[in-house]
Amino acid sequence: MTNFVPTPSVAAPDIVRCAYMEIVVTDLDRSRAFYVDVLGLHVTEEDDNNIYLRSLEEFIHHNLVLRKGPIAAVAAFAYRVKSPAEVDAAEAYYRELGCRVERRKDGFTKGIGDSVRVEDPLGFPYEFFYETEHVERLTQRYDLYSAGELVRLDHFNQVTPDVPKGRAYLEDLGFRVSEDIKDSDGVTYAAWMHRKQTVHDTALTGGNGPRMHHVAFATHEKHNIIQICDKMGALRISDRIERGPGRHGVSNAFYLYILDPDGHRIEIYTQDYYTGDPDNPTITWDVHDNQRRDWWGNPVVPSWYTEASLVLDLDGNTQPVIEREEKSEMAVTVGADGFSYTRKTDGDAGPAGEAQGFKLGAQV
Amino acid sequence: MTNFVPTPSVAAPDIVRCAYMEIVVTDLDRSRAFYVDVLGLHVTEEDDNNIYLRSLEEFIHHNLVLRKGPIAAVAAFAYRVKSPAEVDAAEAYYRELGCRVERRKDGFTKGIGDSVRVEDPLGFPYEFFYETEHVERLTQRYDLYSAGELVRLDHFNQVTPDVPKGRAYLEDLGFRVSEDIKDSDGVTYAAWMHRKQTVHDTALTGGNGPRMHHVAFATHEKHNIIQICDKMGALRISDRIERGPGRHGVSNAFYLYILDPDGHRIEIYTQDYYTGDPDNPTITWDVHDNQRRDWWGNPVVPSWYTEASLVLDLDGNTQPVIEREEKSEMAVTVGADGFSYTRKTDGDAGPAGEAQGFKLGAQV
Amino acid sequence: MTNFVPTPSVAAPDIVRCAYMEIVVTDLDRSRAFYVDVLGLHVTEEDDNNIYLRSLEEFIHHNLVLRKGPIAAVAAFAYRVKSPAEVDAAEAYYRELGCRVERRKDGFTKGIGDSVRVEDPLGFPYEFFYETEHVERLTQRYDLYSAGELVRLDHFNQVTPDVPKGRAYLEDLGFRVSEDIKDSDGVTYAAWMHRKQTVHDTALTGGNGPRMHHVAFATHEKHNIIQICDKMGALRISDRIERGPGRHGVSNAFYLYILDPDGHRIEIYTQDYYTGDPDNPTITWDVHDNQRRDWWGNPVVPSWYTEASLVLDLDGNTQPVIEREEKSEMAVTVGADGFSYTRKTDGDAGPAGEAQGFKLGAQV
Amino acid sequence: MTNFVPTPSVAAPDIVRCAYMEIVVTDLDRSRAFYVDVLGLHVTEEDDNNIYLRSLEEFIHHNLVLRKGPIAAVAAFAYRVKSPAEVDAAEAYYRELGCRVERRKDGFTKGIGDSVRVEDPLGFPYEFFYETEHVERLTQRYDLYSAGELVRLDHFNQVTPDVPKGRAYLEDLGFRVSEDIKDSDGVTYAAWMHRKQTVHDTALTGGNGPRMHHVAFATHEKHNIIQICDKMGALRISDRIERGPGRHGVSNAFYLYILDPDGHRIEIYTQDYYTGDPDNPTITWDVHDNQRRDWWGNPVVPSWYTEASLVLDLDGNTQPVIEREEKSEMAVTVGADGFSYTRKTDGDAGPAGEAQGFKLGAQV
Repeated sequence: MTNFVPTPSVAAPDIVRCAYMEIVVTDLDRSRAFYVDVLGLHVTEEDDNNIYLRSLEEFIHHNLVLRKGPIAAVAAFAYRVKSPAEVDAAEAYYRELGCRVERRKDGFTKGIGDSVRVEDPLGFPYEFFYETEHVERLTQRYDLYSAGELVRLDHFNQVTPDVPKGRAYLEDLGFRVSEDIKDSDGVTYAAWMHRKQTVHDTALTGGNGPRMHHVAFATHEKHNIIQICDKMGALRISDRIERGPGRHGVSNAFYLYILDPDGHRIEIYTQDYYTGDPDNPTITWDVHDNQRRDWWGNPVVPSWYTEASLVLDLDGNTQPVIEREEKSEMAVTVGADGFSYTRKTDGDAGPAGEAQGFKLGAQV
Repeated sequence: MTNFVPTPSVAAPDIVRCAYMEIVVTDLDRSRAFYVDVLGLHVTEEDDNNIYLRSLEEFIHHNLVLRKGPIAAVAAFAYRVKSPAEVDAAEAYYRELGCRVERRKDGFTKGIGDSVRVEDPLGFPYEFFYETEHVERLTQRYDLYSAGELVRLDHFNQVTPDVPKGRAYLEDLGFRVSEDIKDSDGVTYAAWMHRKQTVHDTALTGGNGPRMHHVAFATHEKHNIIQICDKMGALRISDRIERGPGRHGVSNAFYLYILDPDGHRIEIYTQDYYTGDPDNPTITWDVHDNQRRDWWGNPVVPSWYTEASLVLDLDGNTQPVIEREEKSEMAVTVGADGFSYTRKTDGDAGPAGEAQGFKLGAQV
Repeated sequence: MTNFVPTPSVAAPDIVRCAYMEIVVTDLDRSRAFYVDVLGLHVTEEDDNNIYLRSLEEFIHHNLVLRKGPIAAVAAFAYRVKSPAEVDAAEAYYRELGCRVERRKDGFTKGIGDSVRVEDPLGFPYEFFYETEHVERLTQRYDLYSAGELVRLDHFNQVTPDVPKGRAYLEDLGFRVSEDIKDSDGVTYAAWMHRKQTVHDTALTGGNGPRMHHVAFATHEKHNIIQICDKMGALRISDRIERGPGRHGVSNAFYLYILDPDGHRIEIYTQDYYTGDPDNPTITWDVHDNQRRDWWGNPVVPSWYTEASLVLDLDGNTQPVIEREEKSEMAVTVGADGFSYTRKTDGDAGPAGEAQGFKLGAQV
Repeated sequence: MTNFVPTPSVAAPDIVRCAYMEIVVTDLDRSRAFYVDVLGLHVTEEDDNNIYLRSLEEFIHHNLVLRKGPIAAVAAFAYRVKSPAEVDAAEAYYRELGCRVERRKDGFTKGIGDSVRVEDPLGFPYEFFYETEHVERLTQRYDLYSAGELVRLDHFNQVTPDVPKGRAYLEDLGFRVSEDIKDSDGVTYAAWMHRKQTVHDTALTGGNGPRMHHVAFATHEKHNIIQICDKMGALRISDRIERGPGRHGVSNAFYLYILDPDGHRIEIYTQDYYTGDPDNPTITWDVHDNQRRDWWGNPVVPSWYTEASLVLDLDGNTQPVIEREEKSEMAVTVGADGFSYTRKTDGDAGPAGEAQGFKLGAQV
């Protein structure tokens, strides 16, 4: 049974958006080759131990910090808040929750000022900051625009065993749910939650956690994502293309999942929809709908369900991973025991006129 | 051992391009819904038993004939020749080969004049014609241009047991090889052969045959193909998306394979390359190169290797299917017994830095 | 000298976004042909006098109302507010400003509930509402997706004589400026102002007003906009393409301006940037920078500067048009008296190596 | 009155396609910056006086030679022929025509073997060759693929005073006409002529000549062309964008015209149509149809009609320019004396419902 996180009495910090992720990589040169040479992220600054990267249209100091370390893991999911005072609000909020909290007036990473980092109730290292160094926004620097250009940080995705618990905690923190995946027994498999006016700033994926499922960057158009695949083929690293490209059912975005040298998963993502209205309709998908994860019914590879990155506590040690107790989405939908349909009722089978709606030969 | 087709003493007919395919469908209404409502092909003419369809930029009467019949099969692979005299040349050529030949001054299908049909040495029903009714070329009818518009017939693909035999026969017929797939033992698994200045007018895929593997239509851009997937998702017929979209290694084209209501396979294809020079370099792919069929290393579903459409003889009976004796591409590359690599040598592993180059979790 | 609008003592209504425009058209059938048949907007409802249209991804009742009337004009620029209470806030705000205000519990148009309409201090008919009928959001209805699909209402654009006055009034109302155009004498020629996290919900263009310059719809990608041009060519109404397509300097969006049968100007727009951070950098363009209006330096046609739609007061009479007293952007940048440059200093002329930076032959 | 070129008694050489252009530039560094750094053409070889460039999908040594020289001009329009023997045929053909002819067994440029250059009957320096060094075809080198990648040489365009004369000469040489522009008096303003299966290998534009109007490179998709504009904007050389982007009426291609540092005009071009059938329909456009040059009715800038590059004789001296005697397309269609229509008859004015079909405000 879910043991919900209590709702604090103080106001939640006013979060603007997901802003950057700090990840630990084991070989900084190889990671640089991946993020800078292959993906074309722009280097704001770098030294022997850290590379600060940003997407084309970003004006804050960075969207991604690569930090050299012994174990590949995630050190921070950082959100920008609306004002300096909201950093105080975040500190108060997590202190009331009884979480471990650390405040640094000069920030945890270069280019970021007064910040608070917490070990949140789900075990994730969350950061909240307002102050940041503004850097050149490269929006119209088309002389630097690569064929697979990444233009914005779009969202985080977190693996957590108890999605309803995590969802309620994030709703208290001010996030709103745009979409989720459930079954008829009431089990929630995943939820998408936003502050900015897109489908999500972060999503919760049910599984053993806390772990980081992926961090996503947006491109302008779909062909930019195809180019990233084509380039990875040319570089003979197509084995680092894990899943896609495809069209998500959830979010409607065109997507691709690739793996960095340490196995950190990166999503490339484009064209979800506006969610800024207060009554933006929440979409609930049936876990057995074979178009929920891929609108074209293409199979989700098992690794996508099972693999994820460890996360660190505030001392830099990896957080222990707790097993999910509820049903696994992979188990209920993929393989011999799983069940997925293309059409809910086959009475109106449509142009294909198939008597049954399974996608044959494509599922593992 | 290959028993080659003899080379006739008379000149081969001068073939311009693949021009249309005649297929037998078991439910004309359902097929119309697929080809017209879903794919947006343009109806030149139709009656109770036949629908004559063309792509946007076509000016001959049709690129596809749907004929109602009891057994789903292919009745003709039709090529256009350079002049009326070349139909005579085709007739003489196949007569010398000892093939069954039928000549009809008024054509076998509406809108096509003087034609010859043959049961060719590989067992396929080939047609050669020059005369055809010109119809409105819809090139600039952007008022009719759908988001997934098919603009040209691009090529046929035929399954035949003995690829070197078929290839030599087609080379005699004037086709040139643009690409092929081989192994280090000298086995040929497939060959791409062209008359017009693209990668192919037809391809030979090694397998039990004669069967029709697919017929391909071209779009202008990649997003047009993505739209076809999106639309099939919206219509809840994503189970008819068999493979893709993806980027081919062979041909470099962006592709998608879908299945019509009878299981006839249609490829949607865009952006291969110019092959018109006499010394156009032939590209040979290693059958174990995991990027040959999909440049991104995504798996080929088994059905794509095993399923294909029967073909008819000139009496309308299905041709018997002869088993391939040589190694099967699926067997040597997919699954427990198969072997594929991403990188030939892993000494220079590149940005991924993987010790081995298999694509994990994605192969069946 | 600017006579600024006073700042009310009561709080401004919390505006979510531009939501719909109500326009009066003189021939409903011809307008329907344009908006539905040519542009593909989706009809939510229609009767003899009104057509309620929405874009693909919209879930509120409409983004555009076509109302039949004797004089082509704009009846309302409607904004959605955050809650029902914000309609009260809007009413109080404009009453304090001394504006004419009308409140209707059942709304001014079908599908919209409790609303307030005002004649605002600049003479524009503004509406504020929260209640609306939710309708099917067609986001994944790719079976309805046309090649030039309009997916969102993006923004309004208003012509007003005194831009600094209008800008201060809209800033009081809670809008934030993303970009503007000025000269070295301190004259402001235009300003872009947003509530949602894009470059604008409305823009102020300096000129004789109050008039409506255009209303803009967004597409997913650039090719969708090109298709609209191609289709208008096919329909032989290319004379209704007024300007573009092109890339804006301001906003960085890819754009097109077309004219409806009454001369109401529609912009089709895609790919501006995220503006949701509180310190989003404001960009100021020099009015003489020839890339400000078109990043490629293509000329702005004079009609784009001079033509605009009349607006109505709350009685349905046209508002009188007041002349701009300050310098006109057209006069200072186009033609014999105007001056524009491509490069500010020609010492570092770059690859073109031109001694001077004017675009020859392309300006009127 | 037209003084036609006689038809030789010997067979015309069998031309495959337009293959490369040799142009003289006055500042090799500035030209390199333009063609390599801005446009991204690939350097096959270079020395102090020459740069040999090719497009992504090319396998012959080069598509463009930049040669340093005192006067900007074109030294050769080079065509590839089908076999070594066809170079002999070309030599014999032009000798019979009484043209000045020069044969070089080692070629006129690096990477090209046995070639013949002629001063052709229209005054153009034409070259014919078969032998060439094969170089790496970069088709799948997506690691080198820039956002505005040029993938093929598409065509030449030549300015000549007497289009019917030039057309007849090129038809004798084996070219076929795909499209032309005429008026009701029988004047021909331009003709498009092909050997390969696209709309043209070269076009004749009526005007003072012999001059080179432009050389065109193809991209894969339309967004690649837009990126070239965006990049030229970013580099502040938008004044080198002469015309476009737009959709041609003739050829249906999406196009852009830009100017190199010497004023040589480059077209970027994509998506014309297949012309390989022997009875490919020829399209004749009315010179007064305002959609012939731009399908969207956007104006052609005067410089596009008047400016062109000089061509050289075989001694390297510029050929004298002979004035066109017939009507000028610019004069009859642009400005106060010109006349163009959008719709031929306005009885069926369509959705725009305009009483007349001129494009207002957009013509010079």
